[in-house]
Amino acid sequence: MSHGTSRQFRPLPVPNVKVGGYWGDWQDAVCDSTAEILLDRCVKARMLEQIDVNVPSPGIVIPITHWLGTSQMFWDSDLAKSIETIAYATYRKPNPTLEARADEIIEMYERLQEPDGYLNSFFQRIKPEWKWANLRDFHELYCSGHLIEAAVAYYQATGKRKFLEIMSRNADLLVQRFGRGPGQVRGYCGHEEIELALVRLARVTGERKYLDLAKFFIDERGAEPHFFDEESRRAGRDPSDYVFKNYEYSQSHLPVREQRKVVGHAVRAMYLYSGMADIATEYHDDSLTEALEALWADLTSKQMYITGGIGPSMANEGFTDYYDLPNDTAYAETCASVALVFWANRMLGRGPDRCYADVMEQALYNGAISGLSSDGRTFFYDNPLESTGKHHRWVWHHCPCCPPNIARLVSSIGSYFYGVADDDVAIHLYAESSANLELSGGRKVTISQTTNYPWDGAVKIDVTPEHPTTFGLSLRIPSWGKGTKVSVNGKAVSSDEVGVDGYLRIEREWTSGDLITLDIPLVPRAVRANTKVRQDAGRVSVMRGPLVYCLEGVDNAPGLNSILLGQGLGAAKTAVIPDLRHAIAIDLPVLRERSANEELYSEEPPEVVATDARFVPYHLWDNRDPGEMLVWVRSGGAAK
Amino acid sequence: MSHGTSRQFRPLPVPNVKVGGYWGDWQDAVCDSTAEILLDRCVKARMLEQIDVNVPSPGIVIPITHWLGTSQMFWDSDLAKSIETIAYATYRKPNPTLEARADEIIEMYERLQEPDGYLNSFFQRIKPEWKWANLRDFHELYCSGHLIEAAVAYYQATGKRKFLEIMSRNADLLVQRFGRGPGQVRGYCGHEEIELALVRLARVTGERKYLDLAKFFIDERGAEPHFFDEESRRAGRDPSDYVFKNYEYSQSHLPVREQRKVVGHAVRAMYLYSGMADIATEYHDDSLTEALEALWADLTSKQMYITGGIGPSMANEGFTDYYDLPNDTAYAETCASVALVFWANRMLGRGPDRCYADVMEQALYNGAISGLSSDGRTFFYDNPLESTGKHHRWVWHHCPCCPPNIARLVSSIGSYFYGVADDDVAIHLYAESSANLELSGGRKVTISQTTNYPWDGAVKIDVTPEHPTTFGLSLRIPSWGKGTKVSVNGKAVSSDEVGVDGYLRIEREWTSGDLITLDIPLVPRAVRANTKVRQDAGRVSVMRGPLVYCLEGVDNAPGLNSILLGQGLGAAKTAVIPDLRHAIAIDLPVLRERSANEELYSEEPPEVVATDARFVPYHLWDNRDPGEMLVWVRSGGAAK
Repeated sequence: MSHGTSRQFRPLPVPNVKVGGYWGDWQDAVCDSTAEILLDRCVKARMLEQIDVNVPSPGIVIPITHWLGTSQMFWDSDLAKSIETIAYATYRKPNPTLEARADEIIEMYERLQEPDGYLNSFFQRIKPEWKWANLRDFHELYCSGHLIEAAVAYYQATGKRKFLEIMSRNADLLVQRFGRGPGQVRGYCGHEEIELALVRLARVTGERKYLDLAKFFIDERGAEPHFFDEESRRAGRDPSDYVFKNYEYSQSHLPVREQRKVVGHAVRAMYLYSGMADIATEYHDDSLTEALEALWADLTSKQMYITGGIGPSMANEGFTDYYDLPNDTAYAETCASVALVFWANRMLGRGPDRCYADVMEQALYNGAISGLSSDGRTFFYDNPLESTGKHHRWVWHHCPCCPPNIARLVSSIGSYFYGVADDDVAIHLYAESSANLELSGGRKVTISQTTNYPWDGAVKIDVTPEHPTTFGLSLRIPSWGKGTKVSVNGKAVSSDEVGVDGYLRIEREWTSGDLITLDIPLVPRAVRANTKVRQDAGRVSVMRGPLVYCLEGVDNAPGLNSILLGQGLGAAKTAVIPDLRHAIAIDLPVLRERSANEELYSEEPPEVVATDARFVPYHLWDNRDPGEMLVWVRSGGAAK
Repeated sequence: MSHGTSRQFRPLPVPNVKVGGYWGDWQDAVCDSTAEILLDRCVKARMLEQIDVNVPSPGIVIPITHWLGTSQMFWDSDLAKSIETIAYATYRKPNPTLEARADEIIEMYERLQEPDGYLNSFFQRIKPEWKWANLRDFHELYCSGHLIEAAVAYYQATGKRKFLEIMSRNADLLVQRFGRGPGQVRGYCGHEEIELALVRLARVTGERKYLDLAKFFIDERGAEPHFFDEESRRAGRDPSDYVFKNYEYSQSHLPVREQRKVVGHAVRAMYLYSGMADIATEYHDDSLTEALEALWADLTSKQMYITGGIGPSMANEGFTDYYDLPNDTAYAETCASVALVFWANRMLGRGPDRCYADVMEQALYNGAISGLSSDGRTFFYDNPLESTGKHHRWVWHHCPCCPPNIARLVSSIGSYFYGVADDDVAIHLYAESSANLELSGGRKVTISQTTNYPWDGAVKIDVTPEHPTTFGLSLRIPSWGKGTKVSVNGKAVSSDEVGVDGYLRIEREWTSGDLITLDIPLVPRAVRANTKVRQDAGRVSVMRGPLVYCLEGVDNAPGLNSILLGQGLGAAKTAVIPDLRHAIAIDLPVLRERSANEELYSEEPPEVVATDARFVPYHLWDNRDPGEMLVWVRSGGAAK
């Protein structure tokens, strides 16, 4: 797969990074609870009946609506993501029972698979007549994609090849079916996912054909004559009889290289861009990179919540207008922030750049991890930035895509910490961990981080090459990390060394025992939204490091919108909250308004009293007594 | 109907009040445009085909969803409200063509009516098997109610009795069918309306049986065993298979005298309370009044927009939680504010009290009349208090209840100006008009108002009795009208004379030529919402007299939420807007924030520039170039 460049950064396989500290605790929650819960709830939802040829088919369990189908169509993907989670979890904490259950499911899939490699339980067991009938709406390749990702993970974590072989046969069928050759289909899936999955499969198998197929899907998308139009007509359907009205929904309104605006269904968009970024990396495709950079700027400068949440609207599970970021009705699906982490991570494939890594961290620590309760047992699907007290974590969801998505991200999080090229290592995320990596020429290096990040900004990095060797080690200096100090073996490194990419690259001969120390000041800061965001006008969000903070009802008296923050957070005090994973809270002096009377409308100004308010990390909200929540707090000093 | 009290105030019939000035212009718009448009659009919607036995039935035009039925079920009510509008409009401006069309429809109804009096085009022509099958959901008595109201209006305006006779026969059938006697049904309608209609019919015919039936419907509502449960079971339906989940939706969760909280579908609630108020007046029923006063306080102190809009949620077209008043997603249906005017008006039946009249005026001039474009040709169904520029007036609506509702209110508005008792007259609303009324003993009095209200607060009132006579004349002093001056024949009346009811009652012998002058200061004022309304925190609404003002994009640069009003409106200037019905605009100095950079999130505070902003009456918004709109404007001085 190598193209001879030294600056092609790939993530490490999950087993190569041992995770402790903050993320270790999350991973333990997944190992101890989430992984099994996911599988139990898939079983309860009757998913196994759908794939097991030895039991009767459950038939349509979730009603079919219009031509859209049913979310039952992508049960395979829910199972796949659950198996992917189990793979990572059992690697961290061996769990023979759980692994045996996963093996059993894989055997079901083996029995289900057709001789030609076809594998999709819904279309085999429930609606055979719909097989290959509607790539636009039916998630058929999307399911293959998730099963492929699960197979790669299961192989990497357990060393067992069976699932990988099943899904390689399935991918071979796709290679045969899709393409520009005679008799082949020039199509692609309405819900992107297969593209990035095929890259993962190519990387683990070394098979270029999978990479080429991923590139084919990306190249074909949005080309005219439009595949979805043709597919509809062939099936005797009216192409305009489409519930989502336009192809922006699936990012197929234009060839991908011509796309500059982030549109449509948020998860689909992120999965597409992730695949595009992988292909840009693998093929050095600057035309893709150009589109990706424009799309990245579009998303992060006009359409992203401060939490890294994206897709404000429930109607299309996606994007609306620029600067339209309603807080209480924010959809901001957990899956979308998870997928933004995927995309950001892949944008680092062509070299470190904190514009990607900063947002990856922002989405990870806020809009993504908020989707999992601190005990790993319940889930948020949508992630509003304001709640009157009625938004709570789900035990399960009728469309259970988010729980296994955040679980597989958490349990594989180590692979997001580092990027490794031939002669270069980049540290994108600071987190208690130890990574085994290999540079060109088989040079083995261990890099260990000791830190209580994100609660504390001090990070010690031990660099331990097997033999002394020269390479570049790039350390991300977060854009908000003003005053960050770095030293190597006790000697300060000048901040002048920080490149335009926001990374401090230290190239030297590294020897066992080399120690880097970072000290990133985690000073609470008041962040404002652009004044074009009408919903945040006159408000500030309190952040500390990568974490967005919020007010919760459990800590503060009711009526969070009556709270006014003054200018500057100089008086902030921090405190540890033992019953909230020992998170750091921020206590701030505030003003609080209260109407002088009980009238609904009055000319009388409210009374104002000085008091304190407690801010807690947004991602940990709704883990204690239920109540109100508010991220964007009124600012009392805006009009000075 | 008289019960011998001197303090039972009834509204005047529409023909008794000649309207000019501000409301005359609105009535002209209805006469010249709306009345005919309503009928044309009803025809286009195929409503006449449904009632005309000489043409084939159109069948189901609007699909039936679940057990809810279809809005086609209440087409009769849309036609009825249109005919009611035509009645008032042709009285003001004779229009033989339009009147002939109304006569023709009335003849269709005559031919359609069954020998026993039954009349409902949907159940006769489309679904005979559903006749009387589901009072809870099917609007059957609701349609009778609107047809009765139309028949009363048509009789009063034209003197023609045919429609009144048709609907009296229909009402007689209801008298026979519903009641506590043997073989009678102890039921009532899911959508209230028949109650207030029967009171109107009783008042015009003098028939007490209609009043008693209205009282029966009100007394039975919510009683156990619950009629809707029994009705469902009799029809073999599961009572809990109900799309709205609970009987709060139709205010039948409790006997009406036990109700204290305003709940459910907003229009239904208002129509019920209107009927209750009528019955309280007619029967001197203090147990109803007690409930009504509690419900009134509940609505106006916890659940009403400053525009008099009510029912924030589209989901139930109704009420949610206390103090939940979202501005951009406000449903605040035009019909609901119209119906609040109905209720408020009827709360004045037991005597003047500005707590009702002030809100009647507030709803009328803001949330209700906003539903009609200034040319009378297009309509708002929902009336948000903030728009990003996508909310515009409809030509028609799939559920066209609002256009004829606001049209009939406008064209009958004169009857809301006055309340007349045996020896008392109350002026509830100030408006250019001339009213002919009769006190006990056949004493005839003409009262004329000369005013440019609501643009100007000066009102001249000529009192012209046929012969000199003594009675009390109560003038409403609005709660916001601080410093209002009143004189009688040039002699100032002390404001000490204003009663606890907020009315200035002048009892004297009135003689032809008597002149009262009022001067109500219309000073722009900044009104705040209770701090419990989270959506309005830190914001103010500019009002002048009864009018709520707003910012519109057409007058102000984009980004209305970047505008900050300072403390006090002392620097306000007014200006006439010729292209907006010569409305009074308010120009105010403001601050405007603009981000110092293009970043979506930044620690840098915005730049602030001083500028002016133009406020226009809320009810006239979206009559010029489309754009943003904002009622609740940020207040820059809130934290001082």
